[in-house]
Amino acid sequence: MSILVIGSVALDSVETPFGKREEILGGSATYFSIAASFFSKVNIVATVGEDFPKRYITLFRNRNIGIEGLSVSPGKTFRWKGRYDYDLNTANTISTHLNVFKDFKPHVPRPLRDSEFVFLANIDPVLQYSVLEQVKRPKLVACDSMNFWIQNKRKDLERLLDKIDILLLNDAEARQFSGESNLIKAAQFIISFGPKAVIIKRGEHGVLYFSKGSHFVAPAYLLESIYDPTGAGDTFAGGMMGFLSKSKKLNESAIRKAIIYGSIMASFTVEDFSVNRLLEISAKDISNRYSHFRKITKFG
Amino acid sequence: MSILVIGSVALDSVETPFGKREEILGGSATYFSIAASFFSKVNIVATVGEDFPKRYITLFRNRNIGIEGLSVSPGKTFRWKGRYDYDLNTANTISTHLNVFKDFKPHVPRPLRDSEFVFLANIDPVLQYSVLEQVKRPKLVACDSMNFWIQNKRKDLERLLDKIDILLLNDAEARQFSGESNLIKAAQFIISFGPKAVIIKRGEHGVLYFSKGSHFVAPAYLLESIYDPTGAGDTFAGGMMGFLSKSKKLNESAIRKAIIYGSIMASFTVEDFSVNRLLEISAKDISNRYSHFRKITKFG
Repeated sequence: MSILVIGSVALDSVETPFGKREEILGGSATYFSIAASFFSKVNIVATVGEDFPKRYITLFRNRNIGIEGLSVSPGKTFRWKGRYDYDLNTANTISTHLNVFKDFKPHVPRPLRDSEFVFLANIDPVLQYSVLEQVKRPKLVACDSMNFWIQNKRKDLERLLDKIDILLLNDAEARQFSGESNLIKAAQFIISFGPKAVIIKRGEHGVLYFSKGSHFVAPAYLLESIYDPTGAGDTFAGGMMGFLSKSKKLNESAIRKAIIYGSIMASFTVEDFSVNRLLEISAKDISNRYSHFRKITKFG
Repeated sequence: MSILVIGSVALDSVETPFGKREEILGGSATYFSIAASFFSKVNIVATVGEDFPKRYITLFRNRNIGIEGLSVSPGKTFRWKGRYDYDLNTANTISTHLNVFKDFKPHVPRPLRDSEFVFLANIDPVLQYSVLEQVKRPKLVACDSMNFWIQNKRKDLERLLDKIDILLLNDAEARQFSGESNLIKAAQFIISFGPKAVIIKRGEHGVLYFSKGSHFVAPAYLLESIYDPTGAGDTFAGGMMGFLSKSKKLNESAIRKAIIYGSIMASFTVEDFSVNRLLEISAKDISNRYSHFRKITKFG
């Protein structure tokens, strides 16, 4: 069951209270695909510039991540520069240079059009929609979005919602889209536009999953040290979609387990800069942390 | 297994985005005792003024809450006036009139000195300590505190910590006491002063329980409407201590269950002003919500 992700592959410069790194591997499709690669074959659709380091291409290849849809465009790679203060929940953007990403028009190579699991990372909803026009009949489509698109491309986002299965966004964005401060009401409002489910990400407070008339509350895995929260949301999505792609059924029980796997993958990502921690861990580390998660949330 | 609570019985005036109430029944011992009364016999040690409405005394009596230790002092009852904005997590105090509570010296009547479960609600740690000098050999002592005492009576609070089993405080207070921004480290620091466990309250994000080398993460029960968060923390403590007082063992498994019962009781309190919602519910409502809580947090 292969997974397709459309998003960004970028070079990030990040500063947190615990350190500073320049031009490290980043981007939504990067975090997503490395997390998902622990479970299934993933293919990236994205674009980078001619300056994109070869060693990162090798990194994707070594993890069996498909880069047939990763095009190299004339110009420079997308760059993001940001800072986190002690409140690690909020990223302060210092600069964004879209570079080659500015004219990105996702093109899904023919062999990838029958992908069964599709993740539309946070880009213009018009482009996200164009991907759905290219793929055939995916089993599950999940989609991320953000305040900028809710504000500036609301109609396009609404049109997209009717075509997807799961929308992911954070609590402030759910409130913004719905005009409801209560998250149960906000989620039900969003579901009225068509998606089967909404996942509300709350950073260190975990995630809420809503389907029509049902919900699931998952705390985040508690950590002793968080170095860099960049990519946590996309890693979460990668772990979740990865687990689902291996699951026999796509019912709520599978989705709940997938959400915990997503949380676990995100808990590793934030323990170091870039994808460094994800590159260190093994399947055993993931299953150990899953067992520990069960242990610390269990009650009679 | 009777429970003893030392705290305040007050008249509150509260304004939230959803309404306004004047001179309604409030105070930490009030919320605690009504929540705990669903499980066990509770006795209050507190003081009120001569103006305290008789109907509230009747209310305590009707719920079999012991008021032998509730003295009537010359003067007026403790009054608190506060406002909540849309961020219901933060109370903005408009005025506090301690009145008869200013000279409150907790006196535990002789028949209550062998109480097995003792809750020291948030008052001066010197007074909390004086209660422990009066009671005999309680099975379990839990204690609440706040930023004001951490700042102004730190030594007294440290002395108290060595005598109690469970400290309850919110996340900001745990960070303030420990100087650690990470809550795992903050909790372990607090435990080094003597308590067996620390419970960190995170409002709508639930609670964290820490004992030496172990922890438990409990989300809050999701609600469609929250009217007034006043008293949620003391209600939580009441539900928790109430459940524990009926439990055969006081091991971590029992404490985890008790924490969920505490969260459930608090979820009722915030659904209306004062203790109104608690007065409406039955044991069946509590067990239904407990079952639902299990359902919405379960994963494979």
